[in-house]
Amino acid sequence: MNDSIQIPGFLGNGIAAGIKKGEYRDLSLIFSEVPARAAGVFTTNRFKAAPVILDMERIKRGTAQAIIVNSGNANAATGEEGENDAATMSNVTSRALGIEDDLVLVASTGIIGEKLPIEKIARSIDPLVSGLSADGMPLVAEGIITTDRFPKIEYRRCFSGGKEITICGIAKGAGMIEPNMATMLSFIMTDADIDHMSLPTLFRESVDRSFNTITVDGCMSTNDTTIMLANGIAGNTPLSETSGTLMEFREALSDVMISLAKSIVKDGEGATKLIEIIVEGAQSEEDAKEMAYAVAHSNLVKTAFYGEDPNWGRIISAAGSTGVPFSVDSLELYIEDVLLFIHGAGVSGEEAAEIMKRDHIRVLLRLGMGKEAFRVYTSDLSHTYVKINSDYHS
Amino acid sequence: MNDSIQIPGFLGNGIAAGIKKGEYRDLSLIFSEVPARAAGVFTTNRFKAAPVILDMERIKRGTAQAIIVNSGNANAATGEEGENDAATMSNVTSRALGIEDDLVLVASTGIIGEKLPIEKIARSIDPLVSGLSADGMPLVAEGIITTDRFPKIEYRRCFSGGKEITICGIAKGAGMIEPNMATMLSFIMTDADIDHMSLPTLFRESVDRSFNTITVDGCMSTNDTTIMLANGIAGNTPLSETSGTLMEFREALSDVMISLAKSIVKDGEGATKLIEIIVEGAQSEEDAKEMAYAVAHSNLVKTAFYGEDPNWGRIISAAGSTGVPFSVDSLELYIEDVLLFIHGAGVSGEEAAEIMKRDHIRVLLRLGMGKEAFRVYTSDLSHTYVKINSDYHS
Repeated sequence: MNDSIQIPGFLGNGIAAGIKKGEYRDLSLIFSEVPARAAGVFTTNRFKAAPVILDMERIKRGTAQAIIVNSGNANAATGEEGENDAATMSNVTSRALGIEDDLVLVASTGIIGEKLPIEKIARSIDPLVSGLSADGMPLVAEGIITTDRFPKIEYRRCFSGGKEITICGIAKGAGMIEPNMATMLSFIMTDADIDHMSLPTLFRESVDRSFNTITVDGCMSTNDTTIMLANGIAGNTPLSETSGTLMEFREALSDVMISLAKSIVKDGEGATKLIEIIVEGAQSEEDAKEMAYAVAHSNLVKTAFYGEDPNWGRIISAAGSTGVPFSVDSLELYIEDVLLFIHGAGVSGEEAAEIMKRDHIRVLLRLGMGKEAFRVYTSDLSHTYVKINSDYHS
Repeated sequence: MNDSIQIPGFLGNGIAAGIKKGEYRDLSLIFSEVPARAAGVFTTNRFKAAPVILDMERIKRGTAQAIIVNSGNANAATGEEGENDAATMSNVTSRALGIEDDLVLVASTGIIGEKLPIEKIARSIDPLVSGLSADGMPLVAEGIITTDRFPKIEYRRCFSGGKEITICGIAKGAGMIEPNMATMLSFIMTDADIDHMSLPTLFRESVDRSFNTITVDGCMSTNDTTIMLANGIAGNTPLSETSGTLMEFREALSDVMISLAKSIVKDGEGATKLIEIIVEGAQSEEDAKEMAYAVAHSNLVKTAFYGEDPNWGRIISAAGSTGVPFSVDSLELYIEDVLLFIHGAGVSGEEAAEIMKRDHIRVLLRLGMGKEAFRVYTSDLSHTYVKINSDYHS
């Protein structure tokens, strides 16, 4: 247990409740000793899992005190029974903690379309609560993972509003990291006091700068959930957009969330490389984003990176497949600092072959049309991706 | 040589010119004894190969007499030199055939970004022309393939406008069938007399019903080209939209082109299955198309089919990821005739496991929102896809 991962006023725990096969931790609890300001960003998939539907309603209030999370079952496509199970999951948690039921948020990740084993969760709540500890965040991180190869936890301190402030973020795998499953979950905790009007905007903007710039396989889950809790225990002057006090905190928060997002890509199913796609010189950010995602989603580009081949033909072909306006003669393509395409034709760029062996590779497309840019992180497409996703049987 | 594959007035040949490594056929010629009405549909990728740029200009005239095609080199991203090479390829062909240069169309498929070996093509033109034969279409089909496992040729006869009419279609691999390469090529020949105003519309509509409903890996090539030549030798009453004589011919043409399109999907890189995704009950055809493609492009859906797993969670999750309006509670999902999802939850559908072992599988999504529908054909995503596309080195 690393005692440096403590956030004042927050307790955590993660235990094995028997939802997953084997003795793995699969039930986690985050608890703030006082009600915290809360904000959330959820999947836009039309098929929303039962806990997502519950949270989207509760988060409107802007206050929460606990997050109960299970792995091993997504409680998605489970109909009305699933919604009842999500409500029960909240209810047993609020009673064990002695707090108002509406202050509990719920998240689930795992198999879609199977009934949540709610009785296993119910009978594990007491040991889960009694084991809550300021040092428990690594256990929380372990309890929310599915096929992730490692738990993801990030931790920063900064000075803001006159006080030292702590930010801790926990996440699990992105894209469709688990076969037949489906989820990016992330929970951000801080002891900062943040103005209740500023928190949702700040959080949405940080999600856009981090989790919304990554793609593993382009698939959006039924359960994607990110929640931020700010309990104000640091006693700082409340941070707000209007007073201009947010800047330092915003940087630290983005840093935590971007680090988590990169970890998720590195741990993408079968990923062997982190690939950074940057589109510069676009007329609008939307254009840059559309092209960056077109390249990041291309199976031909992703397999070329897996094969460590600086195949610029696949990259420009993917870039050209969108409706984004640019001139073929003005486009420049670089892999790291090596120029591969200019004036409408490829150039030798032999050094690129060596660069392709790295485990973090930057691709830069310059359009020469304007000043807007966008960056996307993705992973390569490997034999292991196909193996994980085709061997699995529902 | 199958003498049943003859189209009155058309000659063909395919020979090995040394563009590909080994003794494979890589240079093909289609020749109509008289100038034919011509229509074409080309890639919308911003990076258009040199022959595509040349053809798009020439096809405006609506008349052509020959198509010269090489495989092994795409003449794409080759700049001005590439455009000169495409013009030379046309020029040596028109001189050998003794026809006007503007009546020649050019197509290339193969490696992107390498100079076309134009001298090899130039010195092969004489033997190519002297070997032209009414029985040569199978050789044409063989000469245009790259990594295709088999040549694709379809042949139909119908009665229309008072005469027997022949339609023959030739195609090569879809999506990005060849590593680092890029092309769906298809050439349709008929002896029908078709009104010059009606031909472009008819052909565009048939392309939309066939090649525009298939996807292998969602990647659009720099060289995609489909050309139709109608030489009028059948002597039928000219077929036209306005006179209502097109119906029977349109059906036969669609039949040829849909058969070619399905062959392309079956022969998609590493494909083991042909998957038919049908979305019914949408408010608009655009909605139905968007959802069908979202499912067809999902790597999770494609790997599930490769693994022969009736994983409905992945299908509905992909369907729900678009902005298409529908109610989760009204959606129904079938694999063949087996119901798997209804009233917002999965149903057992155990028979689906057996169906997944077939090599042609139909997925039906019913939205219950309206009367519009769309059908897409795709392939599964296999280990072989990753192997072909990552082992290849540019």
